[in-house]
Amino acid sequence: MKAYRISHGGTIDGLQLESLVERPLAPYEVRIEVRAVSLNYRDLMVANGAYPVKIDIPIIPCSDGAGDVVAVGSMVTRVQPGDRVAASFFPHWLEGQADQAKVRSALGGDTDGMLAEAVVLHEDTLVKIPEQLSYVAASTLPCAGVTAWNGIFESSDVKPGDTVILLGTGGVSILGLQMAKAAGLRTIITSSSDEKLKRARGLGADETTNYHANPEWQDEVLRMTGGKGVDVVLEVGGEGTITRSVTATAVGGTIATIGGVSGFGGGVNPSTLAIGAKRLIGIYVGSRAMLEQSAALAAGAGIAPVVDRVFPFAKAKEAYRYLESGAHFGKVVIDLTQ
Amino acid sequence: MKAYRISHGGTIDGLQLESLVERPLAPYEVRIEVRAVSLNYRDLMVANGAYPVKIDIPIIPCSDGAGDVVAVGSMVTRVQPGDRVAASFFPHWLEGQADQAKVRSALGGDTDGMLAEAVVLHEDTLVKIPEQLSYVAASTLPCAGVTAWNGIFESSDVKPGDTVILLGTGGVSILGLQMAKAAGLRTIITSSSDEKLKRARGLGADETTNYHANPEWQDEVLRMTGGKGVDVVLEVGGEGTITRSVTATAVGGTIATIGGVSGFGGGVNPSTLAIGAKRLIGIYVGSRAMLEQSAALAAGAGIAPVVDRVFPFAKAKEAYRYLESGAHFGKVVIDLTQ
Amino acid sequence: MKAYRISHGGTIDGLQLESLVERPLAPYEVRIEVRAVSLNYRDLMVANGAYPVKIDIPIIPCSDGAGDVVAVGSMVTRVQPGDRVAASFFPHWLEGQADQAKVRSALGGDTDGMLAEAVVLHEDTLVKIPEQLSYVAASTLPCAGVTAWNGIFESSDVKPGDTVILLGTGGVSILGLQMAKAAGLRTIITSSSDEKLKRARGLGADETTNYHANPEWQDEVLRMTGGKGVDVVLEVGGEGTITRSVTATAVGGTIATIGGVSGFGGGVNPSTLAIGAKRLIGIYVGSRAMLEQSAALAAGAGIAPVVDRVFPFAKAKEAYRYLESGAHFGKVVIDLTQ
Amino acid sequence: MKAYRISHGGTIDGLQLESLVERPLAPYEVRIEVRAVSLNYRDLMVANGAYPVKIDIPIIPCSDGAGDVVAVGSMVTRVQPGDRVAASFFPHWLEGQADQAKVRSALGGDTDGMLAEAVVLHEDTLVKIPEQLSYVAASTLPCAGVTAWNGIFESSDVKPGDTVILLGTGGVSILGLQMAKAAGLRTIITSSSDEKLKRARGLGADETTNYHANPEWQDEVLRMTGGKGVDVVLEVGGEGTITRSVTATAVGGTIATIGGVSGFGGGVNPSTLAIGAKRLIGIYVGSRAMLEQSAALAAGAGIAPVVDRVFPFAKAKEAYRYLESGAHFGKVVIDLTQ
Repeated sequence: MKAYRISHGGTIDGLQLESLVERPLAPYEVRIEVRAVSLNYRDLMVANGAYPVKIDIPIIPCSDGAGDVVAVGSMVTRVQPGDRVAASFFPHWLEGQADQAKVRSALGGDTDGMLAEAVVLHEDTLVKIPEQLSYVAASTLPCAGVTAWNGIFESSDVKPGDTVILLGTGGVSILGLQMAKAAGLRTIITSSSDEKLKRARGLGADETTNYHANPEWQDEVLRMTGGKGVDVVLEVGGEGTITRSVTATAVGGTIATIGGVSGFGGGVNPSTLAIGAKRLIGIYVGSRAMLEQSAALAAGAGIAPVVDRVFPFAKAKEAYRYLESGAHFGKVVIDLTQ
Repeated sequence: MKAYRISHGGTIDGLQLESLVERPLAPYEVRIEVRAVSLNYRDLMVANGAYPVKIDIPIIPCSDGAGDVVAVGSMVTRVQPGDRVAASFFPHWLEGQADQAKVRSALGGDTDGMLAEAVVLHEDTLVKIPEQLSYVAASTLPCAGVTAWNGIFESSDVKPGDTVILLGTGGVSILGLQMAKAAGLRTIITSSSDEKLKRARGLGADETTNYHANPEWQDEVLRMTGGKGVDVVLEVGGEGTITRSVTATAVGGTIATIGGVSGFGGGVNPSTLAIGAKRLIGIYVGSRAMLEQSAALAAGAGIAPVVDRVFPFAKAKEAYRYLESGAHFGKVVIDLTQ
Repeated sequence: MKAYRISHGGTIDGLQLESLVERPLAPYEVRIEVRAVSLNYRDLMVANGAYPVKIDIPIIPCSDGAGDVVAVGSMVTRVQPGDRVAASFFPHWLEGQADQAKVRSALGGDTDGMLAEAVVLHEDTLVKIPEQLSYVAASTLPCAGVTAWNGIFESSDVKPGDTVILLGTGGVSILGLQMAKAAGLRTIITSSSDEKLKRARGLGADETTNYHANPEWQDEVLRMTGGKGVDVVLEVGGEGTITRSVTATAVGGTIATIGGVSGFGGGVNPSTLAIGAKRLIGIYVGSRAMLEQSAALAAGAGIAPVVDRVFPFAKAKEAYRYLESGAHFGKVVIDLTQ
Repeated sequence: MKAYRISHGGTIDGLQLESLVERPLAPYEVRIEVRAVSLNYRDLMVANGAYPVKIDIPIIPCSDGAGDVVAVGSMVTRVQPGDRVAASFFPHWLEGQADQAKVRSALGGDTDGMLAEAVVLHEDTLVKIPEQLSYVAASTLPCAGVTAWNGIFESSDVKPGDTVILLGTGGVSILGLQMAKAAGLRTIITSSSDEKLKRARGLGADETTNYHANPEWQDEVLRMTGGKGVDVVLEVGGEGTITRSVTATAVGGTIATIGGVSGFGGGVNPSTLAIGAKRLIGIYVGSRAMLEQSAALAAGAGIAPVVDRVFPFAKAKEAYRYLESGAHFGKVVIDLTQ
């Protein structure tokens, strides 16, 4: 069995394709042949040594994958050979709110991830893929889809008809756009590219704003909402956008913060939140239940996750580099069936 | 009818006792003879011209008061003459989450408040006082009590048995301590004074820490909670404490931020919230429903709000100055029956 | 100004078209020229003397209407002349959970309703209609739309991707179907007519079952859901369906009961709910906030409420008789602009 | 190791004390020496063959027990030898709402329970006991305590200051009374015995009513609540009380139904729930998280679960018979340390 591993951090070149010996299954374990892996910005940070959580090396990277169950341990009841499954980001966060024990380990972080021909996981980590979703589509959900779900649907008691804003056209935001639209929310999205905004409108964006042409985009958002502001911000920007996002939020509204793209510094003045009764909710991916729910929504609403480009397993490093370039719109995926 | 008014901001001396003419009642209005008014830190900021929300002057200050209904307009159904009532901070926020319309005006801010012998208010603003509560006790609830209630009981789905920390021994924190204890929460409180901590233990604090002796009090709080952190912080400190408060919060926990005592600057790094799935909730006082609920809890649980010192109406400025000195433990109240 | 009034109950013939004198507006009142009124099963029960809540007569019937603001009282701030508005079913239930005071009066029940050329209402009763909705469309929402909203979206914490079942193809169920689909839910609907089921599929039903051909439809529903049952039942059937609905509900699922079509008797064994952790939630129309939210969803998702037939004002009794015949699919509306 | 087993149902005499061989631990399993077991009405039904859920025999009965960890399997992380633990009623319901998979098995029902000198359980089933709680006290929580918790705190968004009614003075109701009072709720309790009502007042009941002297107790409850009704009913009565309980509930209030004592028949008219916006919530014990929360509340608030009588292990049948007699006030416990 071949797998990529990171043995020393710092650059994408640290990824090494290695041959690993398969180990026997413990009673609750499941062996999965991986069919597709999707990349996240976090995977790039892990490879580049920039992830703000400690990583154990050597590690098989990547949290997001889908495949086929090929063998199960003696006590396994959740799945059986032949089932199509995806793995949940945090093996111990099954449902409910996060706590210390639930987020203590994560695929592709301190425990081996999915960038391998085959993986062995505890049955609790697995979710069956609805038949409507391909392996590639399912592989986009565990980190990006769940993060979008958590930020939009769990951070507040958002209701159909409410308004959400997505920042930029990366994987989380585009999946968030599709899920929000499918759930009856009014959607606004930002980009520095009119071309990307046009594509976003095709995916269901009700309103768009170009933050390059219009740096004070928060004022535009207030105008689009009759001066009220949005109910929810899916805040993927971090340092460069958080203050504008708070301004663009309605009194009583919610900013779901994921952090990162524009940097991990920055600061929110708590008094701005107090006078405005605004809620700043930290989103740390999410639970297995959220993955199941994301998959059910994607399947039922006919969401085809936007995949920008697909690379074969042998070209995983190129996939990382393409993600790093920022040229993508939607997801970058590694397809092991090619 | 005599009332204090602020005609020019900047200092406590801007408070002037004036004789005002009583006006006839419109159909939904109610006249109340005020029996007690309690002071909040916000009232001090208003008088000192430091409140971060625009104030219309001249204004009768103070949001928190209780008294007797003496006359009602033709359409009034909520109260009748003889009822003992308190007024809600935001006249238009009856229940539910805050929105722009609900917080558009506030007693003692952009609309006349309670520091008067008699006031006229829309019936929707009023809450009947349970018989177990005195006027003085009831006067402590509309701003301080509701702020504590909102921060502790509405900012998350806190459950009996969870842990909350209160910062310092000001009015909001002490009322919060009493309400939290009465609701089955485990309580931790901080102070720079061992004497005050001793008094807090007498009021139900399960654990205490002196932040003067122990500046890294957040580490002490983690120790007290088995390394887990608290479920809820009632964050009244602002700039000087917010970062420590976030650290002291459990993964998945909530920081209810009120802002202010230590300054309105400071900043919370959103990535700290994301990796930790923590929730930073802006608390802007609260609704009439929260006032009713606070009063029901105080009455049912036999909570006697801690009143540090009572001043007569003629000595209102002394009351402000005493509050400003920071020497108090609990509330400073002006009693109009003296 | 002409209005229909019921002066003696018992039959549809009790509806009398009368000329009424317009009265001046009190400070918070608004005069509305009515453009469309939609009928509900409740209106039929009121006319036939079968409504289980006491009705004051003479009464202008009908809760559901939309029109134009033509004049406002001196204190009105929510609307202004020229605004297009709909009225909320319960004038005092603005938001939040129901309580005694909120449901103490209802349009077309113990207070005058909408079947008139012009009506006068307190401003709090009114909701602005989004520009995307016609008067006819908006007139379908206050009772039927809000009932469906409340039953589907407020009775549990339903999430996109969950499954809801609608019973029959009356006004509430068809609006419920459209809203549920627009909100990303999987939808199942029942009917005794294959023709109606075909139309329901055109409106977004994912699965259908004919309860005439298949009297044990609850077993069919269990089969459709992999043996699990549905997350939510919008239970409009009452006596004839409630037991089957409970069976068709998943462990931990919700039955939102509206009662009525098949009778007001029947009984649910509480032990069936206990062993199954099922929730039976009484739905009594809903709040103004739910009306606003229903309208926002209908506007944003491009929902065109299904109107079976439109009658002119002069033929209101024919409209009632048509509703009584049960031949309709969707709503029966009286259009005052014809 | 000795254990009681039921090999043939029907009577208490079916309980047989047997010697069983201890089996080795699988990787996630834990061996516990049991120190105390408390009896529930359900255990009586299981022994008498009257439990409405299928029971596998032979079975070690009883769900509620506490003891010491004496050995752990190779993969166990939740507990270690020496830990004091209680077992959760449903081994697979860790948290969140119930579903089919979570309630698929239950201790002392279809899987062996606690009435044994030693038991082997999966680590996920276990909860550490707070040091403030004795084994006997902890043994009262898994079924009775969790049922009371679920009914009072999870069936609605009850808030401190709200009112709850407890029916009768059995184990669930008395634990519910103590927990509700500790959580700041106003409490009403019923009994047919003035002596028991007196004891209930000593445990924190704010109001009491004797349903023998006052069969129309629901009217008394309406009077006690100013005509409004209670916010929550912990409905343990079933057939004989459910209709009165619905009447005693406020508009918008919640009836948490557990079923049983007065029979499993009876029926609730769904229209009564609809016109009243009342919520009838089926309570099927609860999750491990609820057990942890119950234990935290009991420990923090100093609740001493009321134990009516303690029997030694050798006299387990006498304990069952005493429970059957109905003479108890609070819990009947078997103490294995005697």
